[in-house]
Amino acid sequence: MQFEVETRDPECAARTGRLTLPHGVVETPVFMPVGTQASVKALSQEDLEAIGAQIILGNAYHLYLRPGTETLEAAGGIHRFMQWNRPILTDSGGFQVFSLAEMNKVTREGVTFQSHLDGSRHLFTPEKAIDVQTSIGADIMMCFDECTSYPVPRDKAEESMRMTLTWAEACKRRWLERDPERQALFGIVQGSVYLDLRAECATALAEMDFPGYAIGGVSVGESKEEMVSVVEATAPRLPEAKPRYLMGVGPPEDILEAIERGVDMFDCVMPTRNARNGGLFTSQGRLNIKNAQYARDFRPIDPDCDCPVCRTYSRAYLAHLYRAGEILALRLNTLHNLFFMLQFLARTRDAVRAGRFRAFKRTFLQAYSSRECGIA
Amino acid sequence: MQFEVETRDPECAARTGRLTLPHGVVETPVFMPVGTQASVKALSQEDLEAIGAQIILGNAYHLYLRPGTETLEAAGGIHRFMQWNRPILTDSGGFQVFSLAEMNKVTREGVTFQSHLDGSRHLFTPEKAIDVQTSIGADIMMCFDECTSYPVPRDKAEESMRMTLTWAEACKRRWLERDPERQALFGIVQGSVYLDLRAECATALAEMDFPGYAIGGVSVGESKEEMVSVVEATAPRLPEAKPRYLMGVGPPEDILEAIERGVDMFDCVMPTRNARNGGLFTSQGRLNIKNAQYARDFRPIDPDCDCPVCRTYSRAYLAHLYRAGEILALRLNTLHNLFFMLQFLARTRDAVRAGRFRAFKRTFLQAYSSRECGIA
Repeated sequence: MQFEVETRDPECAARTGRLTLPHGVVETPVFMPVGTQASVKALSQEDLEAIGAQIILGNAYHLYLRPGTETLEAAGGIHRFMQWNRPILTDSGGFQVFSLAEMNKVTREGVTFQSHLDGSRHLFTPEKAIDVQTSIGADIMMCFDECTSYPVPRDKAEESMRMTLTWAEACKRRWLERDPERQALFGIVQGSVYLDLRAECATALAEMDFPGYAIGGVSVGESKEEMVSVVEATAPRLPEAKPRYLMGVGPPEDILEAIERGVDMFDCVMPTRNARNGGLFTSQGRLNIKNAQYARDFRPIDPDCDCPVCRTYSRAYLAHLYRAGEILALRLNTLHNLFFMLQFLARTRDAVRAGRFRAFKRTFLQAYSSRECGIA
Repeated sequence: MQFEVETRDPECAARTGRLTLPHGVVETPVFMPVGTQASVKALSQEDLEAIGAQIILGNAYHLYLRPGTETLEAAGGIHRFMQWNRPILTDSGGFQVFSLAEMNKVTREGVTFQSHLDGSRHLFTPEKAIDVQTSIGADIMMCFDECTSYPVPRDKAEESMRMTLTWAEACKRRWLERDPERQALFGIVQGSVYLDLRAECATALAEMDFPGYAIGGVSVGESKEEMVSVVEATAPRLPEAKPRYLMGVGPPEDILEAIERGVDMFDCVMPTRNARNGGLFTSQGRLNIKNAQYARDFRPIDPDCDCPVCRTYSRAYLAHLYRAGEILALRLNTLHNLFFMLQFLARTRDAVRAGRFRAFKRTFLQAYSSRECGIA
C-alpha cells in the first residue's frame, strides 16, 4: 500500500491524496459504501462500478459467521467471491462483537461471544481477527479494538483504550507474520470523548507505525460537537504521510468537518439505510419519498443530479414503488443516495485541489440546509 | 395492432409471428414478464431491456387501486410513468377481483368488491375495466371476465362463461368508443375444464371479432392434462390470423405443449416468484440455491447460460446472498430466471422457423428433465 498526499488546502488541514492498493488506486477523501456481508445492500457490483465506487467495506464478524472463512478461502478471497475487482477494506469485527453478538467475556486475550445468528460460541482474539481478515483477503484490514458504548465513565474508557493498544500490538505482530505486502493494516484510535485519552492513544499508535490509522468509537451517540472535538484532538497526532479514516461517519455536514481537520476516508450505512426507508439526499437537503406531496411529482429526485435514477425515473414513480412495497424501490433509492455521496466527495476533492475547500463547504451547506422535508 | 403469422411448423400448429404494437414489434411465441404494479419484481426497466424482454404485463386491478388512474393519466400513461418504452399488456383485473379482493357481489352489471389494501368499496363493470385500462394506456388491454375457481360444477361454469360473453360485448362497445387505434382489446375464453363450453365460448368470441384472443381460467389448480385439453379444444376455434394468449402459463414444459397447439403468447409469475424463493431454472432442470450442496459450488447457475448473472457470479455467492437475506439475491435470481425464459422462447422461435419444433421440444425436455433438485 502506498499513500501520497497530493494537495493541501491553504486554509485548513483538508487534503487530497492517492491510496494505491493491490486492487486499484483510491482518490481521497473517499466515501466507502458499506457491504457488510459481501454485498452493498440492494446493489450489484455492476451498479457500484457504474456510480464510481472506488472501495467498499466488508465486515470480518459477519463474514466469519457467514459464509465463513473456509468458503472465502475456497473462493480465492472476497474479491473473487463477490466479483468486485476494486479495493475492499474489512472492519475487524470489534465493533460488531460488542454491538451485535451476545457478549460473554472480555479478557486481555480477547472476546468470547455468541453468534447473533445461531447462538454458537466463538473467541475472537487480536490474532484471530487478523487470521480471519487474512482469509477474507481485503486490501486493508483493521486492528481488533474494544469499542466502548456512549456515554462511558473515564476510567472504563481509559482501561478500554489501553486494551485496544495492547491488542493493536498483537494485531501488528500477527499481521507481520502473514502477508503484509498483500494486505495493509490500520490501527484504531479509541478513548471515547476524553480528548487526552484520544491524544495518548493516537500518539502510541503512531509510534507503532501502521500503514494507516482510523478514529473509531465515534457515531455511537455522542453529539456532533463531541465528534468534531475528537477528530480535532486526534487527527493532528496521526502521521501526516498516512491515511486517516473516520469510522462510521456520516452525514455530509459531518464529513466536511472531518475533511477540514485532515481526515481522508469515511464509511457510513446512512446513505444505504436511509434509502431503504425512503430518505433521499438532494443538493437542497433531504426528502422522504413517502411524503404525500411526491405522489404526483413527476420531477426527478434532484433536478441537479445526473445519476441513473434521476436521469430516468420520477419522484411519483419512486413514491409508488415504495408504497407498493416493490423491491426496485430499495435499489433505485440506494443507487441515488450512494451516487450523491460519491459525487459529493468528488466535488470536495476538486475543491481541495483548487484550494477553495472552505468556500465549497459554505456553498454546499447553504444549499443543503435550505430544505429538510420530513426525514424518517 | 397488426399480427402476421410468419412461419408454420409442418408437423403441428406451432407458428411464429410478428405482433406490431404502438410501442414496438413483438416476435411470437413470446413470454411476457409480469409487472403487476408497474414493476417486474426486483428488476429495473434497464435490466428488462438488457435481457431482451419484448413486452411486459401490468394489472388493471392493482394499478387502479395504486397509484390510481389519476396519477397514471397525469404521468401520461404507464409507459411514461414507469419509463418502459416497449409494449405493455394489461390484464383487466377480472382474475384479481375474484382472487384478491373481498368480493361482495357479482351481477350482470359487474362486480362490487373491497380493496385488499384498505377495504374500500369499488364497482368494476366491463365499461369501467375498459376505462381504467384506457387511463393506464397499455398497447393491449383485456376484456373483463368472470374467472371461476377450480373445480367448479358445470352449471356454474356455464353461467360464468355466458356472463363473460355478455361482458365481452360490453367491453368491445366501450373500447370502440375510446381509442381502438391506440390500444388493442383481446377477448378471453372461459368455460373451466368443460371442453364444449370452451368451444362454444371460443366460437362466440371469434364472431365478435377481437384483435386477439386469450384462453383464461387455466393455471387455477387443474391438472396439466386438463390444461392441455382446454388448449386443444380452444385454440383451433380461434381465428388463425389473430394472436392467441394462454394466460398465467407457465413452466417451460407447459409452454411447449401450448405452442405445439398454436398458442403465441404467455405470461407467468413463476420465473420471478420462484427466483425470490431460491428456485432457479437451468438447461438441466431446476435447482434450489438454498440447498447445502451449493454453498461452495463456484460454478455459475447454468454453465450453458450466457445471462449477466451466470457470466459473473457463482452459485456459492448466490447461495450466500440468499442465506444472508441480501436484497441482491432477489434481483440476480430473477434476472437469471427471466433470461432463461426469454432465451427458451427465442430458441423455440428459431426451431419453429427452421421447421424442427418437435425435435427441439424433445431435446429440450430430455435435458430439462434430467435433474430436479429440491425445488421449493
